[in-house]
Amino acid sequence: MQKKELLYEGKAKKVYRTDDPGLYIVSYKDDATAFNGLKKGTIVGKGVVNNQMSNYMFRLLEKQGIPTHYVEELNERETAVKRVSIIPLEVIVRNKAAGSLSKRLGLPEGTGLKSPVLEFSYKNDELGDPMVNDYHILAVELATREELDQIAEMSLNINRLMVDFFKTVDVDLIDFKLEFGKTSDGEIILADEISPDTCRFWDGTTGEKLDKDRFRRDMGGVEEAYAEMMRRLGLK
Amino acid sequence: MQKKELLYEGKAKKVYRTDDPGLYIVSYKDDATAFNGLKKGTIVGKGVVNNQMSNYMFRLLEKQGIPTHYVEELNERETAVKRVSIIPLEVIVRNKAAGSLSKRLGLPEGTGLKSPVLEFSYKNDELGDPMVNDYHILAVELATREELDQIAEMSLNINRLMVDFFKTVDVDLIDFKLEFGKTSDGEIILADEISPDTCRFWDGTTGEKLDKDRFRRDMGGVEEAYAEMMRRLGLK
Repeated sequence: MQKKELLYEGKAKKVYRTDDPGLYIVSYKDDATAFNGLKKGTIVGKGVVNNQMSNYMFRLLEKQGIPTHYVEELNERETAVKRVSIIPLEVIVRNKAAGSLSKRLGLPEGTGLKSPVLEFSYKNDELGDPMVNDYHILAVELATREELDQIAEMSLNINRLMVDFFKTVDVDLIDFKLEFGKTSDGEIILADEISPDTCRFWDGTTGEKLDKDRFRRDMGGVEEAYAEMMRRLGLK
Repeated sequence: MQKKELLYEGKAKKVYRTDDPGLYIVSYKDDATAFNGLKKGTIVGKGVVNNQMSNYMFRLLEKQGIPTHYVEELNERETAVKRVSIIPLEVIVRNKAAGSLSKRLGLPEGTGLKSPVLEFSYKNDELGDPMVNDYHILAVELATREELDQIAEMSLNINRLMVDFFKTVDVDLIDFKLEFGKTSDGEIILADEISPDTCRFWDGTTGEKLDKDRFRRDMGGVEEAYAEMMRRLGLK
């Protein structure tokens, strides 16, 4: 497989075409942004962590029956993935209140929820990735009823698997963001990444934050938190 | 039935206890607020319009099998209603994009939707009545799954009945807000009001706004718009 031209550069990743029409190459950057791009910075080594951790999680989920875009890790920052058209929704799965949910519902961070919460955001920078519900999604045809039901079911399954897995390394999975893509034959598979950029990880014992909130909130120890998550996963 | 002490004063209505423990009296005011109370004013005669129009609509919906809190119109501003505990959700039903939906999804006002949109807001002034989805509602126990399904089904039914009715008086029902209450024996019934304060009404021919947007947006002709809606309903 040969790397061809850059197709897309996002805030944290680049995507390249390859000579195989069914495969892309994802390249993870150290660039960090928050608050819809208002805050910008660099987290040294983040691209390596996010690439290797995402691939670890995708392999783990694949083994449990979740189809993902993962194909092969090419080097410490680059991975071959299946070509998909991304469904323009961010799926947020929440086990405890934190971040925008704490603000929305007036719940202190860490408050337990009677049942996991799914939220959908319409991926649209201009509109600020607004929260949408099922009716919005169907009314403006961002997905069909069947696709939406499948995405919700997969997301809740992934949540169960990830909560259980992170418990084994003494990490409390507070919430995380997923994105899904559709393959050329219409299959919906997990795409994007699973990393400290896209998950809230709290140490299961001390409650210490081991994720991008350290960057968002200027808490210091950002690189160390990313490195600690790698150690927990036995990747370093 | 005798009017007893004031139980609650809201932005647009007062609620009184009566000597019948199963009944309250609602009294409609001319006070108008918008943008979560930031804009304040008076719409002369609004209380009379909203009382009489709400009662007209409640009677019409009752005839079509929708249970409501309506009992009896007492005078031009006051109505006896069933005592309920209000479910702390605003249900917004939308047939075309307008207001916050236009902003959220970047759709020009009046854009058609493939299917009606329901939105829920958590009734909480301090939090600014945030939009919530089914998962939020269940996770913080604002309603049960069964209650939520029933509220959604009733709201979509009410929408069908109201769209059809307003068409007969050349009014396009763009969107509206509903609130539901639970009676002492657990029945969920329609409560609150149905008026130009809580609905977007556009003239079916000219598109002219006949609702509270004239107040929100300083368009003038506010009282005239409320009066015109009364005329269309044959109430004046």
